[in-house]
Amino acid sequence: MSGISGTQMAERQGVTDEAMIASVEPVLASFVRSVGLPRNLREAVEYALLEGGKRLRPLLSMHSAIAVGGTADDALPAAAAVEMIHAFSLVHDDLPALDNDDLRRGRPTVHKAHGEAMAILVGDGLMSIAFQLICERSSDAGLAGQLCAELAQGTTRMIAGQVLDTLGGHDAATDVERLRETHRQKTGALIVAACRMGAIAGMWRHGGRGGRGANGVREDDLLAVTRYGNAVGLMFQLVDDLLDVEQSTEQLGKRSGKDAEAGKLTYPVVMGVEASRMEAARLLEEARSSAQRLECGAGLIDLAEAMARRDR
Amino acid sequence: MSGISGTQMAERQGVTDEAMIASVEPVLASFVRSVGLPRNLREAVEYALLEGGKRLRPLLSMHSAIAVGGTADDALPAAAAVEMIHAFSLVHDDLPALDNDDLRRGRPTVHKAHGEAMAILVGDGLMSIAFQLICERSSDAGLAGQLCAELAQGTTRMIAGQVLDTLGGHDAATDVERLRETHRQKTGALIVAACRMGAIAGMWRHGGRGGRGANGVREDDLLAVTRYGNAVGLMFQLVDDLLDVEQSTEQLGKRSGKDAEAGKLTYPVVMGVEASRMEAARLLEEARSSAQRLECGAGLIDLAEAMARRDR
Repeated sequence: MSGISGTQMAERQGVTDEAMIASVEPVLASFVRSVGLPRNLREAVEYALLEGGKRLRPLLSMHSAIAVGGTADDALPAAAAVEMIHAFSLVHDDLPALDNDDLRRGRPTVHKAHGEAMAILVGDGLMSIAFQLICERSSDAGLAGQLCAELAQGTTRMIAGQVLDTLGGHDAATDVERLRETHRQKTGALIVAACRMGAIAGMWRHGGRGGRGANGVREDDLLAVTRYGNAVGLMFQLVDDLLDVEQSTEQLGKRSGKDAEAGKLTYPVVMGVEASRMEAARLLEEARSSAQRLECGAGLIDLAEAMARRDR
Repeated sequence: MSGISGTQMAERQGVTDEAMIASVEPVLASFVRSVGLPRNLREAVEYALLEGGKRLRPLLSMHSAIAVGGTADDALPAAAAVEMIHAFSLVHDDLPALDNDDLRRGRPTVHKAHGEAMAILVGDGLMSIAFQLICERSSDAGLAGQLCAELAQGTTRMIAGQVLDTLGGHDAATDVERLRETHRQKTGALIVAACRMGAIAGMWRHGGRGGRGANGVREDDLLAVTRYGNAVGLMFQLVDDLLDVEQSTEQLGKRSGKDAEAGKLTYPVVMGVEASRMEAARLLEEARSSAQRLECGAGLIDLAEAMARRDR
């Protein structure tokens, strides 16, 4: 570990979290405008993608790039693409046949605002545009191929997790194991992909310490980033479940208490609230120790701590 | 042009259309099994992907690879991935909020057989698995990046075309122009992608005549393949529209006459049946002359002729 704080690290790089998010927004907006969509589809895609959102996954990508010796900008295409996949998943998960949600980020969901047919096609479009963005904005085709591989695997696992969550199909026997199997895929897989893609992009040009030189991937660093991603991915879901129990709809910007209403398995239901809090603390420690193995992992540590503290 | 027929070409290469299709099927089946889906999702994906289908797009990919001096096997990952994208589009297009079809290839559609939630997730999964397949089965990451770029663009345009077809949003002013704008995207874009991906994969290792050597793309050949794809793509849709007017549901394996019922613009409605037939013949000639520019384009010519003659 470098011994300096994430804030100092960010200042040294001249990049705060706010600046990182501010650098992703125009990539998202300009790329959607560039692909030649019909106006009605473009407006619905923009509604789904551009207004609101914590941009957590882009931050994970950019901090992962910095953590392995690259820059936040190296990870911009990966960051934007992962956010598009996240946006697609929200649009489809909200559909009447799935979670049937009317409200998202304090606004009507896409199918409420633009109709169900458009919402299905907006989700589909966001997925393909994400892969397009990686291919058209990456520095070379080899990097694009590596990033697409990570994104595609993360997306497939996320979809599998959504099936487990809404339609069942588990291999695991106990409730705790099922819950972990679901969330490792539904939430965790794309978070891991965000981290790995950022790290791969950050290593690509810079190679750096102990690496295979230019355009290479250092497996030990990638492993540490993967462990970090797995830990914060599960922690994120635990915090989400705890917020759903503890917060009001107004604070969350989406309907709260709906997990319990729907009879869904959640960590607080299966493990109890206190044990869930302790598990979240354990995962934060795991994330911290994984990030400490990286050259410049302080930003990842700060981000994990902010994720543990979040209240919406 | 080589001066030998497509059949002779195929025999010289030891590959008939039947053999090509037979080589794609196990790639589709084994890849779906390999990605670790929950059993219920895997079975629904297999239902959507493995049973039936003309496999036209894989044939276009493989014949395009041969046409530029490669082999059918070079195009296998591209061929399988394009077919997965095609299968995804059918599953989502059939949904109640879109075309609301109960029947596909003579069987209940995916949402009728597996429920609407699963059908949405099957379509999503087929798209991400398609990109996964390209990345994991291509000979190197640079080729994977190039193929993903083509596939992503083709998929986005296909989705835009579906929006135009079902929800409007045209730029074009006249019915004929709108029809062409819709079908260039809805049907044509993925057919063009199938051809271009096959050609890129076929050129990758072989380089060949007048090329930039190994791992390069010959732009003149790619342009000829693109022109071929554009011509057969529009022709395919014309033939489809003509079949919808002329054939029974039993012959087609899907509901016939539904375009007219739905008041949709089709070529026979806008141009009349005879003018549609003449336009199809003109496009066949355009496909033929584009393929003749290629070193080994005879297989593409035979395929275009078979597409013009098809009766289902």
